[in-house]
Amino acid sequence: MLSKNQIKHINSLKIGKFRRIFKQFLLEGKKSVYDLLNSDFEIIEIYALKYWIDENIVILENKKIEFQEINEKELSRISSQKTPNDVIAIVKIPINEIIPKNIFSGLCLVLDEIKDPGNLGTIIRTADWFGIENIICSKNSVDVYNPKVVQATMGSITRVKVYYTQLSDFLSSKPSETKIFGTMLEGENIYKTELIENAIILIGNESQGISSELLPMIDEKISIPKGSKNFQSQAESLNASIATAIICSEFQRRKI
Amino acid sequence: MLSKNQIKHINSLKIGKFRRIFKQFLLEGKKSVYDLLNSDFEIIEIYALKYWIDENIVILENKKIEFQEINEKELSRISSQKTPNDVIAIVKIPINEIIPKNIFSGLCLVLDEIKDPGNLGTIIRTADWFGIENIICSKNSVDVYNPKVVQATMGSITRVKVYYTQLSDFLSSKPSETKIFGTMLEGENIYKTELIENAIILIGNESQGISSELLPMIDEKISIPKGSKNFQSQAESLNASIATAIICSEFQRRKI
Repeated sequence: MLSKNQIKHINSLKIGKFRRIFKQFLLEGKKSVYDLLNSDFEIIEIYALKYWIDENIVILENKKIEFQEINEKELSRISSQKTPNDVIAIVKIPINEIIPKNIFSGLCLVLDEIKDPGNLGTIIRTADWFGIENIICSKNSVDVYNPKVVQATMGSITRVKVYYTQLSDFLSSKPSETKIFGTMLEGENIYKTELIENAIILIGNESQGISSELLPMIDEKISIPKGSKNFQSQAESLNASIATAIICSEFQRRKI
Repeated sequence: MLSKNQIKHINSLKIGKFRRIFKQFLLEGKKSVYDLLNSDFEIIEIYALKYWIDENIVILENKKIEFQEINEKELSRISSQKTPNDVIAIVKIPINEIIPKNIFSGLCLVLDEIKDPGNLGTIIRTADWFGIENIICSKNSVDVYNPKVVQATMGSITRVKVYYTQLSDFLSSKPSETKIFGTMLEGENIYKTELIENAIILIGNESQGISSELLPMIDEKISIPKGSKNFQSQAESLNASIATAIICSEFQRRKI
């Protein structure tokens, strides 16, 4: 039986301010918690339906993870989901403050003020698919531990590391052999641009694009050409997570 | 001043049952309504803040569109958005029952039970970008006039036509020169598959993939290869709208 204080604490972690105070976040659902159990994240406590605990009791005991059985009604009181998915974990926010030195080797994804939680979560999931280990976000981007972000990563948050930093300083620190590819509406056709292995893919805000102060730092402006079969496309832009995925896919294709 | 009955009617259109009864749906926001005014959709009425009406009065009067000025408080009572965006239109649901005969010429997107509104909306927006005019959905897919779908299309719903039909019958009716490319986790590397111009891209449900009854109809199983730079990607899948976009992009790239 969950106490009032437990429910209050869990629900407080849906709000950024309390996540920063407690240095904890929530992770929900069987797939995500499965990935969590296979990660180095520190788990504070797990709340789950009886069958889930029965199925996972060995790993919970081996890893000495605290857990509590709850019923469906209790689950719905602490879940962020319309259809709660059996298990919720309170997880310690890891300290990822120091950006690794090898960040500029290979592909690096840099997000300038992504605001939509679904977009950031989907970008993390896509990065995981394409083997991109680290994502750099501007400080004014959406919080990666927002439950909607966590949900959209579908477990990839346990594998891809996300760092928040001041982007112009970060981009200035890159070695000269690493090129910055900025994704814009007016840029070179990505399919025909020469891509290199050590590359930063810079993605701008959903409505404003890349900040004006970062524009001069871009080495190659790239864009995804519109199609026009029978009608001229009047779409103004692509969704930010879609554009990111298409660019990552094109880098991936050239490598294989 | 909105009447209680108006508010009730508008809010009822957020629910599928009432959209089907009234054959109307809601479209919100400046960008989407701008696209709406440039489309053939029949507008029942527009509710907007004073400045928006002042800016658009000429087109409203020329097109003889009924409109009503509302204040921010009224707007927030009828909006589906956290941050309402100045204008809401009630629109007549068009009758798109007859699938056009030229559907099999060029690229055709077929969605098998896409359930997430954000995914369908984003797929429509992506289709618009790549010049794909028509999308075929299985009958059990999410309703295209769901406000979350409409929102995610960012106006593309006014240009891309979406048809609901029984997929195995539809796919059986294709001419022999049109090939069905099924997107799966286990398929040919999309970057190396021979793609043709008259192609059906078949996308499956978010968690179940393509229905078993449709699997035998696929001509080419395709998939997006995982990357592996420094770590082996353990991502289980890509988001359905992301996978669709990458596949569409690859078809587009071969054409240019």
